[in-house]
Amino acid sequence: MRKMDYQNVKGTQDYLPDTEVIRRGIRRTIEDVFIQYGCKPLETPILNYTELLASKYGGGAEILEEMYTLTDRGERDLALRYDLTIPFAKVVAMNPSIRRPFKRYEIGKVFRDGPIKTGRLREFTQCDVDIVGIESQVAEAELMTMALDAFRKLGLKVSIQYNNRKLLAGMLEAFGTTDEKINKVILILDKLEKVGSEAVTVELREQGLLPSTINSINRFITAEDNASSGYFEPLSERNQQIKQGVAELKELESYLEFLGVDKQCTFNPFLARGLEIYTGTIYEIFLSDKTIKSSIGSGGRYDNAIGGLIGTNESFSTVGISLGLDVIYTALLSSKENIVENPDVDFYVIPINTEKQALLVARHLRDKGYKVEYEMGKKRLGKALDKANKEKFRNVIIIGENEVKNNQIKIKDMFSGEERMEPFSFSEG
Amino acid sequence: MRKMDYQNVKGTQDYLPDTEVIRRGIRRTIEDVFIQYGCKPLETPILNYTELLASKYGGGAEILEEMYTLTDRGERDLALRYDLTIPFAKVVAMNPSIRRPFKRYEIGKVFRDGPIKTGRLREFTQCDVDIVGIESQVAEAELMTMALDAFRKLGLKVSIQYNNRKLLAGMLEAFGTTDEKINKVILILDKLEKVGSEAVTVELREQGLLPSTINSINRFITAEDNASSGYFEPLSERNQQIKQGVAELKELESYLEFLGVDKQCTFNPFLARGLEIYTGTIYEIFLSDKTIKSSIGSGGRYDNAIGGLIGTNESFSTVGISLGLDVIYTALLSSKENIVENPDVDFYVIPINTEKQALLVARHLRDKGYKVEYEMGKKRLGKALDKANKEKFRNVIIIGENEVKNNQIKIKDMFSGEERMEPFSFSEG
Repeated sequence: MRKMDYQNVKGTQDYLPDTEVIRRGIRRTIEDVFIQYGCKPLETPILNYTELLASKYGGGAEILEEMYTLTDRGERDLALRYDLTIPFAKVVAMNPSIRRPFKRYEIGKVFRDGPIKTGRLREFTQCDVDIVGIESQVAEAELMTMALDAFRKLGLKVSIQYNNRKLLAGMLEAFGTTDEKINKVILILDKLEKVGSEAVTVELREQGLLPSTINSINRFITAEDNASSGYFEPLSERNQQIKQGVAELKELESYLEFLGVDKQCTFNPFLARGLEIYTGTIYEIFLSDKTIKSSIGSGGRYDNAIGGLIGTNESFSTVGISLGLDVIYTALLSSKENIVENPDVDFYVIPINTEKQALLVARHLRDKGYKVEYEMGKKRLGKALDKANKEKFRNVIIIGENEVKNNQIKIKDMFSGEERMEPFSFSEG
Repeated sequence: MRKMDYQNVKGTQDYLPDTEVIRRGIRRTIEDVFIQYGCKPLETPILNYTELLASKYGGGAEILEEMYTLTDRGERDLALRYDLTIPFAKVVAMNPSIRRPFKRYEIGKVFRDGPIKTGRLREFTQCDVDIVGIESQVAEAELMTMALDAFRKLGLKVSIQYNNRKLLAGMLEAFGTTDEKINKVILILDKLEKVGSEAVTVELREQGLLPSTINSINRFITAEDNASSGYFEPLSERNQQIKQGVAELKELESYLEFLGVDKQCTFNPFLARGLEIYTGTIYEIFLSDKTIKSSIGSGGRYDNAIGGLIGTNESFSTVGISLGLDVIYTALLSSKENIVENPDVDFYVIPINTEKQALLVARHLRDKGYKVEYEMGKKRLGKALDKANKEKFRNVIIIGENEVKNNQIKIKDMFSGEERMEPFSFSEG
């Protein structure tokens, strides 16, 4: 018989139990925080009409190239979702009776047939919260606080960088950057922290900007006080976008300060992210210890996307945040001490020619709410204890024929080595 | 602007919060029971090589027709998984170092591009446990007991019907049914309960069986004592399959009796299910009140599938069980009283021109572990209380300017109508 090739598909992987136990813990922690913040669960299909996902209000041209497409038996053109935002927008569009503000979370798989870089998968899990129906910056403050809470519960130290799209675009406009160059320049400035101001200036010159514009940008990016809203306030009168951006920034900062999370949040006037969709506040979350350089969560305000997608003029104030399950897993692995005791097994029950009686003990313990692993493999005691050591089961219950005769069970603590006997009535069974 | 068509793809649906809160509860209850029984989590990709999923040891010809197929940018032939069993078998094949018995659970989406009947979706969630490496019937007993536990925790009364493939096939063989007819006859007998013995006899005649065979089958299906292993025991010597089947049946029943679950489990000698894969014990779970006629969970032993899939002669004793999330949701909806209090919100905080102070109260409560919904929509009090009633929020906290001035908050019990004041220090913020 030909042996089949058992590779996983490129860009996908199995999560074996050791990994999946930790991922499940992350998922539950995040979900519990979402629930605590009043977010409601939503589950949307992975299969969608290609027409919906290909909307220009969706992920943009780059993501469209990465869409998995297929046809079903009814010859419909379908695609696998590449994010959870468009399905959310679709639900808002399909259900006009949903009361707003509508604050939903969804944790689910998304698919991108893109180039594989380190740590980037083609099938991965996102954890998203989006709020539709709130114009004030309280929505951003809520999501940023929620993210900080989630990471605190996960045991990860993080900080958030934030900016406002209006502010950055307004500044560049005021400096005389032409409309069609603004997005390009924003992308160049986004690299400032990585490459430094000199490299940025070189790139700006290549764009063919006016010398006066380059000079202004240069003064902006090298100004020592540009990382506070105070720097922008005097410039408010130069441009409507700057004015609105400053107002929003100050509103957001007042909330952050009031909530006592301002020390974990830093204003970064050059933060760009996801240009095409965002319209106001944007934020990215970084590990404080920088073991992972890229952000481990991000989001912002995108007031035009849902309306554009639906094709109405109605305004849909929308703010979202997205956390990546896999990057958080990687962060936890590199930061945490090894877990000492297997969290999934309270007792490991080993029968020694006492299959049924041992099963009764397992049942008794499970009825009491304990997590019980019952050894079904007819292992010899030594082998079974090896397994207990490898799997980090702490409490082992050994049931031999003598124990059954004497109506007792032997409980061994694998960490301390101590053994004790406890009464157990086998005759009742 | 053209208004886009926002239908969901045929056979898919959104689960809005009212539904999803209940589904999440079901999923967690089931997962917690799986964990309690020592099952380990596994997550496998949805995208697989078509060659793997199309193996004849998989879902059989019928399911293959329902496979969604696609190609990725590397021109690979891919398909969406249609169950969780083949991905499990693949993991066992790819990871020979996994210690057996390997008892894993997976809860995840599967896809079948099949005809849409009532309640049948093309994208749906399965909750599976499979055990590889146990030859004894203790594995079946464990999974059946686990399923009963799960349904008890879900508040659903169920019973399990079980049978043994060897027994049924052996009987038909002993009656002189030719090999190529056996599977057909088994499928006809599976309908016995639904259509009655006369209709079954008519169908058997159409198969062109020998009159003596039909007579024997007839005596078998009308025998009053055929629903106990005692009926088959004297027939053991006629046929090796019957002999083995009876031995397995008696072993299983001794475990069920010993565990005290025998009253919820009924032997049905005509139960057939999933012919092509199962090799021994099979079982289906039914609602006791029969509000849903079809089974709400099922499984059995399939000792040849993994070995066949891998293409080795190595034996892989394997037993599995699968619970359908959506059918359980439907069962719960028709059986349960309406949930009185929204389980996702402990407190609903309403600011009356006190956005920031109210946010501080929400934060304080969340820090204490409460689930808090904060009203961001600047609703008037009356509208906000309407929302509380509709959403079944029990505890509402109202924060007006007077409350802030007096450092206190008003807590209203929406069910009893009672209001009380509690101190809260706003000045600390």
